[in-house]
Parts: sequence; structure tokens; C-alpha cells
Amino acid sequence: MSGLVQTPDWIALDWGGSHLRAWAVVGGRPVAHVASDAGTGALDRDAFGPALTALVQDWLTEKRCIPAFACGMLGSRQGWVEAPYRTVPCAPLGGGLVAAPQTDPRLQVYVLPGLKQPRPADVMRGEETQIAGFLALNPGWDGVICLPGTHSKWVHVSAGEVVSFQTFLTGETFALLSGQSVLRHGMDGWDDAGFDDGLAQGLDRPDRLLSRLFTLRAEGLLDGLDPATARARLSGLLVGAELAAAKPYWLGQRVAVLGAGDLAALYARALDGLSVPVSAHTAEAATLAGLAAARAAHTKEATCAR
Amino acid sequence: MSGLVQTPDWIALDWGGSHLRAWAVVGGRPVAHVASDAGTGALDRDAFGPALTALVQDWLTEKRCIPAFACGMLGSRQGWVEAPYRTVPCAPLGGGLVAAPQTDPRLQVYVLPGLKQPRPADVMRGEETQIAGFLALNPGWDGVICLPGTHSKWVHVSAGEVVSFQTFLTGETFALLSGQSVLRHGMDGWDDAGFDDGLAQGLDRPDRLLSRLFTLRAEGLLDGLDPATARARLSGLLVGAELAAAKPYWLGQRVAVLGAGDLAALYARALDGLSVPVSAHTAEAATLAGLAAARAAHTKEATCAR
Repeated sequence: MSGLVQTPDWIALDWGGSHLRAWAVVGGRPVAHVASDAGTGALDRDAFGPALTALVQDWLTEKRCIPAFACGMLGSRQGWVEAPYRTVPCAPLGGGLVAAPQTDPRLQVYVLPGLKQPRPADVMRGEETQIAGFLALNPGWDGVICLPGTHSKWVHVSAGEVVSFQTFLTGETFALLSGQSVLRHGMDGWDDAGFDDGLAQGLDRPDRLLSRLFTLRAEGLLDGLDPATARARLSGLLVGAELAAAKPYWLGQRVAVLGAGDLAALYARALDGLSVPVSAHTAEAATLAGLAAARAAHTKEATCAR
Repeated sequence: MSGLVQTPDWIALDWGGSHLRAWAVVGGRPVAHVASDAGTGALDRDAFGPALTALVQDWLTEKRCIPAFACGMLGSRQGWVEAPYRTVPCAPLGGGLVAAPQTDPRLQVYVLPGLKQPRPADVMRGEETQIAGFLALNPGWDGVICLPGTHSKWVHVSAGEVVSFQTFLTGETFALLSGQSVLRHGMDGWDDAGFDDGLAQGLDRPDRLLSRLFTLRAEGLLDGLDPATARARLSGLLVGAELAAAKPYWLGQRVAVLGAGDLAALYARALDGLSVPVSAHTAEAATLAGLAAARAAHTKEATCAR
């Protein structure tokens, strides 16, 4: 991390449960990026300010207060400051920003609210910003956005609004089963054919998930199932079960997958195999575009001149 | 733990991944019981003998070597001594006992082998002894035995043989999700109505499991879902998904549930609700009867006179 030639116009923050990412933005472009593992899950309320200052220290100046726009779990009840959910159907961004307590006179953080859906009950924090960014980068886009990850989201977008969405515990279940269950003994690496095999099984019979999980263990013991195949097949089983249950979202729709490179590519390939018109996009670009849209809409309110 | 008036004829051992249970048997009846948390998962190979001696110390005598019959994970490759699986279809017990290394001249342990099924790949260690015991206590019984737990088993028994079986990762998945996932924040206690609600959902749409899991979290955040209801509904969702997938086992069959009291009752109630003729039985009595059957069949070989 080093000092910038120019003080940033504003700072973009993606502050999730297990990560903190920051970009210095000058003239509409990110000119520097820093990250740490100071996720909201690891911080007490009064540790947020110091953690942020420590990370972006070199970008700050005594001359003025720089605004920062932040999305993610820092706006949850257990986060830095609660930014109450907005209710769908609604545009992914549209007010409700909450100013965090100012702990450093050189910095003022504004937190974007998440979205909630009353029935079936569902929530998101952070993804709404990615969706807004994706729509800013692709004006007029209608369809379904899939955001794979710890808590995968499927989102129906129409006329610039989030109409409905559904969350799946896919990534977290994979992490727990591959890392902490009895399955961990025979899991290491990755094998594309194993993923495809699990995907087909999961799509075909998502109801058999709990028994197919133990089959992985038994094949390891009896047939010497390769650990890379086992791990990839577990992922395929879970993603297949997710895709089967998300069929009302993707059937007859075009789908944009927003995610980290490998995972987005995996989902895009799986959807392509189902003859779904699909495109894969980097989540980071969408996050930045969404935070920029929030900042553009709040240049007047969100100032912090000293 | 206290000394016995009479030295036991033999010792019954149930040695699983997370527990060690021992009974002193005199004249065919258990006269004393001790247990510890020295499960096989926590022991290196050379720690098994000392852990056992420490537990049953007071039952031993310098005058002779007492035989012990043991079932469970101590016979796995990572256990004390490997007792290779027998292959179904076969009687639940039928030879293949392996003598453990003798580490105490007052004691000799014989390990019962588990069962394996080549296709679909599946394995059991310990449950075969419970099945044998149940059949010893209920001669001529035909039907399906359900052994709920960490790794729930459904077993088709006919003419004294295990014909086929299937394992579900239900209990372990419940433990991980309720204890370590994001769901842990809103889970505490138990509520029967919550279980029934989850059971109905799981039975009806087992394919929706991954999204129904997150709904629990969202209802906690948005509707203040009661933690006891949330935990019981999670259990119901998983048990319902297991029962839906195990339908080929229970449909048109009578089912005996073998398990710890609460869990066996829960499964029995769920099956009764599906109009399945069902009875619930204590696993411990079956384990003891199974070990006794193994001992009766091996009185000649399994001696350890000094």
C-alpha cells in the first residue's frame, strides 16, 4: 500500500462478513485498491472506524474530509450502523443511505441499505449494489441476475426494478461439508468431470442430496474415489440442486451471472448446458459501478466538508 | 465407577467416532455400565488400549483374561484394528471378527466387521450389530429398519439378511447448519409445531432444501422467527427431505426405528403421519443383544486364557 499522487474524490467500500475491500476513485476511475480480512463478522461496533482508517490511511489528507460509499454487511444490525432494508419491488438503489458515526475527521462513510422481500421472506445486503451497477453498465437490461456465492441469489429484474429474489445456502453448505463434515477426509483439489457428474445428478434428482452426499464418502472408502473428483462432485451436486430449484427463475429467461471469475464461469457453463442464454460478468466491476451510481445520486447530501 | 462383586463373563463395547460405551456382562445380563468421550476420532492407534483399560479398570482381574466384543468405528481403517467390511446381501453378523492387539493381559478385544454395499456404494459400522440384536430380540422379523442419527441408515431386511441399505447425512448436516452456519444466530431450543411444519415442507418439496434453509434466516431477521421454532423447523426440513428420498424403502413396508429415545420417537411420529406401520426401539438394547449374539457365536475362538 502506498500513498497516491492525488487525493481521491471518494472511496468505494465493499464490506462483507469476511472481507473489506476499498478503492480510491479519481475522476470516475479506481486508481488504487486495498483489501483486508477485517470482515464485519470479526469486528465489534467500535472497531469498524479504526479498521477502515488503518486500511486507507495513505489515501487520506488533513485538508478535507473524503466521502466513502459502502455496501454489504456493515449495514446490518450487527454491523457498524444499521441501514434498514428497502422493500421489493423497487429499484436496487434509491435512497435510504445512512451515515456511519464519524471516527476520523478525514473520512465520512455512507452505508447503502439492502433489500428485503416479505413473502417468501428473503434479504440481501451488497448484491443490490452489484445489481444496480450491472444495470448502470447495461442500461435497459431485463431478465434474471444470478449472483453465486456463499448465499447464492437469483433475482428477477424488470424495468430497472428488482421484482423478486430467492437465496440459496449453496456456498456455505459446500464450505461446511467439504471442510468440516466426514466428507472432508476424501476431498482435495478439483476435477471438471467430477463437477459435471455431480451437476447432472443434482439437476436430475435434487431430492436425493442427503444420500448422494454419503455416497461420496462410501465411494472414497470402497472405490478409492479421487479426492479432486469427490470435491468437485460435491460442488456439482449442490449447484445442480440449486439450479433445479431455481428453474422458475431461469426457465425461458436470459441470465446474467455476476460473480468471482471461476464461480461465475462454473454457473454460466452449467446454465449454458441447460440451453439458457447466459453471460458471465465480474462482480467487482458491478460493485464499483453500483457504488458510483449511489455516489452520483447523493453528491449533495453526502458531503463532509470540515 | 466402582468395582463389581463378580468378575464379568465378558465385556460389551460400543466404540464409535465420538463415544466409548462399555457394559460388564454376567450370566447374560449387563450388571454395570461405564462411558467416556474417548471416541475413535480422538485417538491415535496406540491410545485405544490404554483408553479402554482406564475405563474398565475396576472390572478386570489378575486371575484371567476377559474377552470383550466391540462394534463401531474402532474397526475402521483409522481405528484400532481394521476389520474388513462384509458384503451385502448377508446376515448382519457372520464371522470376520478381528482380534485387537493385546495391550493389557487382563483383556482381549474382538472387533466386529461392518457391512458394505458395492452399488450404490455404502458402508456401515456398528449399525450391523444393532440390526443383528434387533433380529435376535424379534426372531423372524422382516421389513425395513431405520437407524436415525449423524448418518441415518435405511436397511431392508429379509429372511435374516441385510438385502440393501442407504445412508443419509441428515444428522451431521443438521449439526453443522445449526451450530456453524449463518443460521446459528437464530437457533435455540425446540418446538414440536416447528418440526412438523418443516417436516411437511421437506416431504412436499425436498428439492427446495437449499433455499428453505435461507428462509429460516430471513424470517429470523424480518419476522422475528422464534429460535426454538427455527431450530425445530430446520430439523423437520432435513428429516422431511430424508423421508421423501427414502420412500422406496418405507413405502408399503413396516418400519422399525432403532435409535436414541427422542430421535427414534421423532422419526416414528413422522412415519406414522405417512400411514407407515412403525415401531420405535431403543438402540442400546439392540447393541447389547447384537454383541451377545456375536459372543455366543464365538465362544470357542474368542478365548484369551493366559
